[in-house]
Amino acid sequence: MPNAQDTIAAIAKRRGYYWPSYEIYGGLSGYITYGDLGTKLKRNIECTWRRYFTNHQNILELDAPVINPATVFEASGHLENFKEYSTECTSCGRSFRVDHLIEEKTGLETVEAMGGDAILRLLREKGIKCPQCGGALRDPVMFLTMFKTEIGATGGLTGYARPEAAQSMFINFKRGYQHAREKLPFALAQVGKVMRNEISPRRGPTRVREFTIMELELFFDPQDPNCPMLGEVVDAPIRLHTEEMEAAEENTPLKTTIGAALEQGHILTEWGAYFMGVSRLFVDHLGIPAERQRFRAHLHEERSHYSSQTYDHEVLLDSIGWLEVAGHAYRTDYDLKAHQRGSGHDMTALRDGTRFTPHVVEPSFGLDRLFLAALEISYERRDKRNIFTLPRDIAPYQVSVFPLVTKDGLTERAGQVHEAFQGAGLATFYDEGGSVGRRYARSDEAGTPLAVTVDYTTLEDDTVTVRDRDSWGQVRTPTHDLTEKLKAYLTYGIDFGDLGEPV
Amino acid sequence: MPNAQDTIAAIAKRRGYYWPSYEIYGGLSGYITYGDLGTKLKRNIECTWRRYFTNHQNILELDAPVINPATVFEASGHLENFKEYSTECTSCGRSFRVDHLIEEKTGLETVEAMGGDAILRLLREKGIKCPQCGGALRDPVMFLTMFKTEIGATGGLTGYARPEAAQSMFINFKRGYQHAREKLPFALAQVGKVMRNEISPRRGPTRVREFTIMELELFFDPQDPNCPMLGEVVDAPIRLHTEEMEAAEENTPLKTTIGAALEQGHILTEWGAYFMGVSRLFVDHLGIPAERQRFRAHLHEERSHYSSQTYDHEVLLDSIGWLEVAGHAYRTDYDLKAHQRGSGHDMTALRDGTRFTPHVVEPSFGLDRLFLAALEISYERRDKRNIFTLPRDIAPYQVSVFPLVTKDGLTERAGQVHEAFQGAGLATFYDEGGSVGRRYARSDEAGTPLAVTVDYTTLEDDTVTVRDRDSWGQVRTPTHDLTEKLKAYLTYGIDFGDLGEPV
Repeated sequence: MPNAQDTIAAIAKRRGYYWPSYEIYGGLSGYITYGDLGTKLKRNIECTWRRYFTNHQNILELDAPVINPATVFEASGHLENFKEYSTECTSCGRSFRVDHLIEEKTGLETVEAMGGDAILRLLREKGIKCPQCGGALRDPVMFLTMFKTEIGATGGLTGYARPEAAQSMFINFKRGYQHAREKLPFALAQVGKVMRNEISPRRGPTRVREFTIMELELFFDPQDPNCPMLGEVVDAPIRLHTEEMEAAEENTPLKTTIGAALEQGHILTEWGAYFMGVSRLFVDHLGIPAERQRFRAHLHEERSHYSSQTYDHEVLLDSIGWLEVAGHAYRTDYDLKAHQRGSGHDMTALRDGTRFTPHVVEPSFGLDRLFLAALEISYERRDKRNIFTLPRDIAPYQVSVFPLVTKDGLTERAGQVHEAFQGAGLATFYDEGGSVGRRYARSDEAGTPLAVTVDYTTLEDDTVTVRDRDSWGQVRTPTHDLTEKLKAYLTYGIDFGDLGEPV
Repeated sequence: MPNAQDTIAAIAKRRGYYWPSYEIYGGLSGYITYGDLGTKLKRNIECTWRRYFTNHQNILELDAPVINPATVFEASGHLENFKEYSTECTSCGRSFRVDHLIEEKTGLETVEAMGGDAILRLLREKGIKCPQCGGALRDPVMFLTMFKTEIGATGGLTGYARPEAAQSMFINFKRGYQHAREKLPFALAQVGKVMRNEISPRRGPTRVREFTIMELELFFDPQDPNCPMLGEVVDAPIRLHTEEMEAAEENTPLKTTIGAALEQGHILTEWGAYFMGVSRLFVDHLGIPAERQRFRAHLHEERSHYSSQTYDHEVLLDSIGWLEVAGHAYRTDYDLKAHQRGSGHDMTALRDGTRFTPHVVEPSFGLDRLFLAALEISYERRDKRNIFTLPRDIAPYQVSVFPLVTKDGLTERAGQVHEAFQGAGLATFYDEGGSVGRRYARSDEAGTPLAVTVDYTTLEDDTVTVRDRDSWGQVRTPTHDLTEKLKAYLTYGIDFGDLGEPV
């Protein structure tokens, strides 16, 4: 009996959401490839993120290279800090991340946060062997988890693939400041590829070596730290695990609101609180229920070298438990100062004739993980059928169009309906293969909210049936204003019952 | 007196279209960073491409990793063929691409096509020295222009950044075939990052080391090579430079149509002709006039190792001459057969019980170059002002909103107009800084087609002025149905004069 995760992975492969990359070459862990449904679903999530996070005048988009010269990561501290303990089996030669080995053996959590000495001691004390072949493990070494390359022809420059998009925002701070007409606050935002040379990535899309990050760096004056948009999210309810609660291993979340958490000092900055609130609304929008969301603070030892406070936004998946989908970090003036030192260039802003280094709040989202979460949480098995009840406005296709049969002019009429929808900008999928029941099943597996069927009655009175993915209910409706009705339905403007008369 | 290219580069930097990457670290040639205006313009061109090229049922999108294991490029022939002759100055140490050195010295074109022996002979015969310092040059070596890295922790796997997206379509052919329900023709399309480790990239966005490719592989049965959509573009006029004309150094283009070029055997396949026709329409859409477009065939020696026929789609820029923005290659069954050999996996399709290897036609676009071309060609200097007369539906912002002055409630009213536009999905830019004249100038530099000004009359009768970027003409119009009118204008549904009464 396969579990839901295996079932979803199988459907994902068969229908073209995603599958492991390089299948014909035996696969390569840490890489996945998205097919047609996956590419479209992922892009719709990206567009939704942009609507929630960049739809403000002073949030400027950026698109910068993946490969950076070593100087950038020397200054940022990544060359020093972006490392993990790695060990190798003396027998089979496989590599492993030491903290993960300890976690698997002991059931401990966040072993990474314990620091080097504790990790090395635990590895010895627990007598951990190779989980693949039982062989002895070598002494651990620190492994830089960035991809390294050479830029240029001979004796080239050392370059690294960025493990986060943030550094391009910092090194381009002055350009952004210029484009924002030298006023704070403003933000630089970027959706782009990042790469992490994971030591032993698990299969599937939760820990991959190449993924898309949606990241925003908000620059503000620490003497003027107010967020004018805070009111939009101040009452948003959140489940919080503060640093103190984490340290005390308190597992019951604090149910509070953005405003209260800020007031009680659980969140250090207004901007951080604002973005956590927007984060909550955005993840809601992807169909993830409130009770499957929480914000968990990093312990001091667990935090990245640049952060003064980090909350992970996590979602609960039945398959793997809590999964981090976003990080909310208060990076203070760490990065701008680091690049000022590293480059010798001024990285300050101006306040009444005084130069100062802006502070930074960063919300950072993993698009691939959000994709996985939205897909798994929307999965439903009913009457031996698979349904992805994805939110209507992020589903890969919005409406399927079928002719009841492929004769008597129904194909042509259905083709016209399909083209009219397409012309109006709807993401439409035309399907004439197999029985209508089978086509409905395919449409449900693609997460398509609605299916429109053209039948003999259509030829008489220009009405069609519309079928709801979620309830499997059907209505009959005239075609003349159907496009507008569909658009209203797909943006949650009307209910399914409003689309026509019940059949 | 700066030329247009320098002027555009300066505006691009100042306003946030694009600029050289890593400025604070002294720059790194071959890398550019896009700012807010650039990111949006680039994305709009990408969306337009998708509308022209992927808006068909059997065109499936794909999104695959940038880093590939070496086996992929061993099989594809890239490890063997993706090389250039590189030389280094014995004095200053700089590296150069040998064919480019010869071209600069001799004025010859497409020296690369002459082959290794001729290139090495020319370098010696012409006595070429270092163009930077006059030093002697070393003996040329073949340099693999792919970025190399190691995947995984210890003794990792060798990996390369892909120099084209195509290989991911080929190695995933069988998945695509499955998702297309095992029917030909179908296509896999991908928009994604690619990297080429150029030996000595020029500055600016025409030859960069990291760029976005928009690529499509159409798989068809060579025994059933018809393209059912050919009729859509059969009459499209094109300027052609055939392989024979190129060999004869004939510089006058053949003015013909897609249909005629196909019939006369200048284009080998119907699918190739179809995509060249769509290519023509798509590039038109970006504002590039017909007389600035041509299709130039590659000579046999100039073609990539996988191609039986290649036409470059080139556009004429005043700054640099003809620039390749797309390649149309007939890759035959080269790649699928190569991966069948390399992987041992079957890469065939089925026709009436017979297995065969599909043939492939590939249109491939360089997004960054299209961006540059659209920007430069739309540039206009008028009355000491800079205007980018970008097509209305690809401009970064669609409409600017200004209060005439920032008092007497005009700011609030303008804010409402701005929000109403935003709520209706328009890309709106609100601006209250400086005189209205200065704001118009800024709006023109951002290529924004329309500017709406809220003034005292607005408070009385709810009308606003709308100003046209291209003619600088103005009309007055009520706000109540303005959103719909703007949308019609921005999709070329109505003319500027239809927006209201002349002022």
